[in-house]
Amino acid sequence: MSARVAGPEIERLIQLLARLPGLGPRSARRAVLTLVKRREQLFKPLVFALSDALDKITLCSNCGNIDVSDPCLMCTDPRRDSTILCVVEEVGDLWALERAGAITGRYHVLGGVLNALDGIGPEDLSIGSLIERAKSGDVREVVLAVNATVDGQATAHVITDLLNGTGIKVSKLAHGVPVGGELDYLDDGTLAQAIKERRPA
Amino acid sequence: MSARVAGPEIERLIQLLARLPGLGPRSARRAVLTLVKRREQLFKPLVFALSDALDKITLCSNCGNIDVSDPCLMCTDPRRDSTILCVVEEVGDLWALERAGAITGRYHVLGGVLNALDGIGPEDLSIGSLIERAKSGDVREVVLAVNATVDGQATAHVITDLLNGTGIKVSKLAHGVPVGGELDYLDDGTLAQAIKERRPA
Repeated sequence: MSARVAGPEIERLIQLLARLPGLGPRSARRAVLTLVKRREQLFKPLVFALSDALDKITLCSNCGNIDVSDPCLMCTDPRRDSTILCVVEEVGDLWALERAGAITGRYHVLGGVLNALDGIGPEDLSIGSLIERAKSGDVREVVLAVNATVDGQATAHVITDLLNGTGIKVSKLAHGVPVGGELDYLDDGTLAQAIKERRPA
Repeated sequence: MSARVAGPEIERLIQLLARLPGLGPRSARRAVLTLVKRREQLFKPLVFALSDALDKITLCSNCGNIDVSDPCLMCTDPRRDSTILCVVEEVGDLWALERAGAITGRYHVLGGVLNALDGIGPEDLSIGSLIERAKSGDVREVVLAVNATVDGQATAHVITDLLNGTGIKVSKLAHGVPVGGELDYLDDGTLAQAIKERRPA
């Protein structure tokens, strides 16, 4: 669509929507047409929900999660086990673990991983506040649920070192065959790790 | 993400975004995280652009296009040839033709196609106003740029009948091999049509 077809407002809206992950210029145009067609059921509620979220969404000053309250639901929920602290890179990882229902404890969002090339050091991440949180509370185990990348593992190593001698148990995610995965399609590294970390059947 | 992770406002926003074409629950979650991360550059401008569009976007009462003014830019642009009227099913088709820069005339958006099974008759589409527009103005040619589907062709047939005897030339899109297309991958119907409508080289 060029500027000649409609006013600049529509053009600008398409450009902004196209910057969302998963959308490009073509799907952004389709999205705008869908919104206009479903004005009452979708367009109005979406504008309201976005404005509302823009006003209310905030970072939890305790754990780095996003929520409409600070501290967030995860930090204030009394049913969660405060002796377990699960460390993740990003909020999306926290959401993924929650969907899996795998963590009964609390979370700490680092906001990224260490990367010397990009100039991201410990002071750019919430590693300091993590160590403080771990030492000050009744935390007995820190679960490092960082990505299985070089940077993720380096970050995990630094955190493990910093918690060394505090008496806090530090654990990390198991490597192995994905549930439902077929061996034939798995990469060699994962397969080797799955054999190395084999367990009694 | 379950309601336990964050407030219902975020959950609601994800649900609404997931209803846009091209987005599902997973990409809607990623979109929300992107918005929160890029609050100033993306979140605020997007909320503003959407609110603005919700206030301003309207259907052109003349041609059925969407725009922020009525009559729309296409209808008021004096450089466009008012003797040619291009009939399309939906606004998206108008945008596609404008991207191709193929039409120098004006447009008429039907708002759908005739479909007996779905109970869509001529009175549900803007066929009446199309005939009126064609007869009252200085229109010399009506280009039927409807989809090459059974319903699209039936609709084209009805419009051709209604314009019969008015002296207005009625044309339709050429069928044939897509530009850049390979014959080996083309369906038999299109290939047969391309041979039938072959032209001097």
